[in-house]
Amino acid sequence: MPHIDVDKNLPGIRSLLAFSPETAEPMGVLANLLLRSNDGLSMAERELIAAHVSYLNDCFYCHQSHGEIAVCYLNGDRDLVNKVKADYENAPISDKLKSLLSIAASVQKGGKQVRPDQIEYARALGATDKDIHDTVLIAAMFCMFNRYVDGLAAHTPSDLSTYPPRAKQVAEQGYGNHVFSKNQPV
Amino acid sequence: MPHIDVDKNLPGIRSLLAFSPETAEPMGVLANLLLRSNDGLSMAERELIAAHVSYLNDCFYCHQSHGEIAVCYLNGDRDLVNKVKADYENAPISDKLKSLLSIAASVQKGGKQVRPDQIEYARALGATDKDIHDTVLIAAMFCMFNRYVDGLAAHTPSDLSTYPPRAKQVAEQGYGNHVFSKNQPV
Repeated sequence: MPHIDVDKNLPGIRSLLAFSPETAEPMGVLANLLLRSNDGLSMAERELIAAHVSYLNDCFYCHQSHGEIAVCYLNGDRDLVNKVKADYENAPISDKLKSLLSIAASVQKGGKQVRPDQIEYARALGATDKDIHDTVLIAAMFCMFNRYVDGLAAHTPSDLSTYPPRAKQVAEQGYGNHVFSKNQPV
Repeated sequence: MPHIDVDKNLPGIRSLLAFSPETAEPMGVLANLLLRSNDGLSMAERELIAAHVSYLNDCFYCHQSHGEIAVCYLNGDRDLVNKVKADYENAPISDKLKSLLSIAASVQKGGKQVRPDQIEYARALGATDKDIHDTVLIAAMFCMFNRYVDGLAAHTPSDLSTYPPRAKQVAEQGYGNHVFSKNQPV
């Protein structure tokens, strides 16, 4: 049961965004800027970083939601997404993305856990300053979102079939005010 | 040395905000909404929560910066702020604020660390849904900011005298675009 009185018909972060629409707005803007861009990292890569960090933070609602959005961008390849979440080192993805996921995993533990050799390795594989910046900030942003959702014990649907319709909508329209509309899928 | 090529004349998060002004904007809006309000929690209480979480995350730049802003709101009582950062249970603050700092400290560890009895205890001491929401989101937001700063190894001034002039400016003007102006104190 959620720790505060939120709309019981809304799942996860959407119930919190509806509870506090003022703070929801800049969080939506930030999510759009960091996740809805193909400048450097692709939208699929950005969602994979989000899903992996959420998995490490054990936030089921977030890793399920963002994993499903990645599935939309990856032609339905749910096996790949699940592999990246739990065992990216052995997933069929580029070495560059693996090096960035390693940085994201360090950020999840704490900012000071990122080592210079991780940065140098990512650079050697083609990562730019912007790629590294965006990776660190996406990982940090999900350390916020995950704690917001679970810190207030927001309702997490256990029925996995409820996530793909909402993921499709985000994949098509992005994050925005519609995230806390009541007349939407999960 | 910072992990990416940022302006060496800017300290901490300000160098990152200048590197990425697009993402800086919603982060500034969110910080203003959550820290520059006396609706329920006072601005001093909000900055104390920010400083304590940053202390737990071992982010020197953030706990020093936000601690000094709290000092501005607390008539220069730096001893109180330092006590709240490191040992709030024995600080001369209200039991309600202690109960909220306990929730914030749980959020710092992870969202699922917040226990229902902590919420019930805060409520018994007068905390509202909004107080609890804001406490969790401030703590979560600093889990993002702290990781952004240290995850990119942003420059952290060791000279403590450089923090109060900047803190005074934020206390007077709030967070905003001026945070990444070059012609400002730390």
